[in-house]
Amino acid sequence: MSRVTVEKKVLSENDRIAADLRERYRQNGVLVVNLISSPGSGKTTLLERTLESFAPGTKVAVLTGDIQTDNDARRLARFGFPVKQITTGGACHLDARMIEKSLEDWDLANLDMLIIENVGNLVCPTSYDLGEEAKIVLLSVTEGDDKPLKYPGIFHRAELMLLTKMDLLPYVPFDAAAARENARKVHPAMEILEVSSTTGAGLDKWLGWLATRRSR
Amino acid sequence: MSRVTVEKKVLSENDRIAADLRERYRQNGVLVVNLISSPGSGKTTLLERTLESFAPGTKVAVLTGDIQTDNDARRLARFGFPVKQITTGGACHLDARMIEKSLEDWDLANLDMLIIENVGNLVCPTSYDLGEEAKIVLLSVTEGDDKPLKYPGIFHRAELMLLTKMDLLPYVPFDAAAARENARKVHPAMEILEVSSTTGAGLDKWLGWLATRRSR
Repeated sequence: MSRVTVEKKVLSENDRIAADLRERYRQNGVLVVNLISSPGSGKTTLLERTLESFAPGTKVAVLTGDIQTDNDARRLARFGFPVKQITTGGACHLDARMIEKSLEDWDLANLDMLIIENVGNLVCPTSYDLGEEAKIVLLSVTEGDDKPLKYPGIFHRAELMLLTKMDLLPYVPFDAAAARENARKVHPAMEILEVSSTTGAGLDKWLGWLATRRSR
Repeated sequence: MSRVTVEKKVLSENDRIAADLRERYRQNGVLVVNLISSPGSGKTTLLERTLESFAPGTKVAVLTGDIQTDNDARRLARFGFPVKQITTGGACHLDARMIEKSLEDWDLANLDMLIIENVGNLVCPTSYDLGEEAKIVLLSVTEGDDKPLKYPGIFHRAELMLLTKMDLLPYVPFDAAAARENARKVHPAMEILEVSSTTGAGLDKWLGWLATRRSR
């Protein structure tokens, strides 16, 4: 079997499990989002700010993926919501089977929202459907504003782009208008929000986006 | 054939070509380094500063990899040295065959140094030997200082870690001492240099590192 054939088989098996997951999320009314970015674009810090904004008793849970370490799960667990680390041990993305397995001892009927933080990578996670309602791509202003053109796959598939670390904009050569334009070249209907987890600017819009999607 | 078997076959074929390349570099006295980092850690900007520091007539060439676009090759070509873009069209790393093919119309006897800028990714490029003398990993201070623990593969294999964007250190929660310590947990003999392509701080040490390796 060629490499491409094997890859296709792996992906079609993943799609089958993801379809099952999607149906289970739907039946239980759980909004599931999948956060994807380069390493270091601020996924975990944004999640810290997000979780700390939720009222106690909010029915939210987090699955966080990394190749090694459970650092992120430890950072996120202190807000009191269920958090589980998925350590891929080498794989540069989460897949649907990892999600299915992690959900075995959680009752979806008790959740309103599941946030998945994927492994830091702009390429590998793109093709792996996790049954989520929406992929969200983070791009920090300390990266290049041409990233949407260089990594069109994920920017095409994500519904929302979060421009993160906006507080650093004065110190970096990042052109936010060019980044927006590049994102819309790849994905004309892309929603775009600007946030800073450090100053809190824009977090209200991000939380509003989540709330709107939850109430659909 | 299982996925793992196919992956192993692809890697052993890559290793065979890489060994040929390594022998050709050696015969022609070309120092080859392979720059690896997340997207947006500053590889291309560091290369701009590096190329502009070289005297005209320096026998250096650059191969720069991206999934899409030839933006980086255009940025680097203006310094007058040979530069070629490798567009992988989806693959998240360069492989030895891509390098072999790109070198077909360059005479290695006319080169002293070849700098390879890999696709922005902390995972995929790790396993693909390009016949290089040294892998160099870049970690910018706008990323997390725990990245060496989360991506041990590349930090273990790289000889040199460049901490980049040091000028942004006052504005970010990055702990440079922790980053150094984490890198040395994974790779005790790791060489570490701190640079800023914006202010120029530390570039002399980086250029000195290259010069020393060239003269070996």
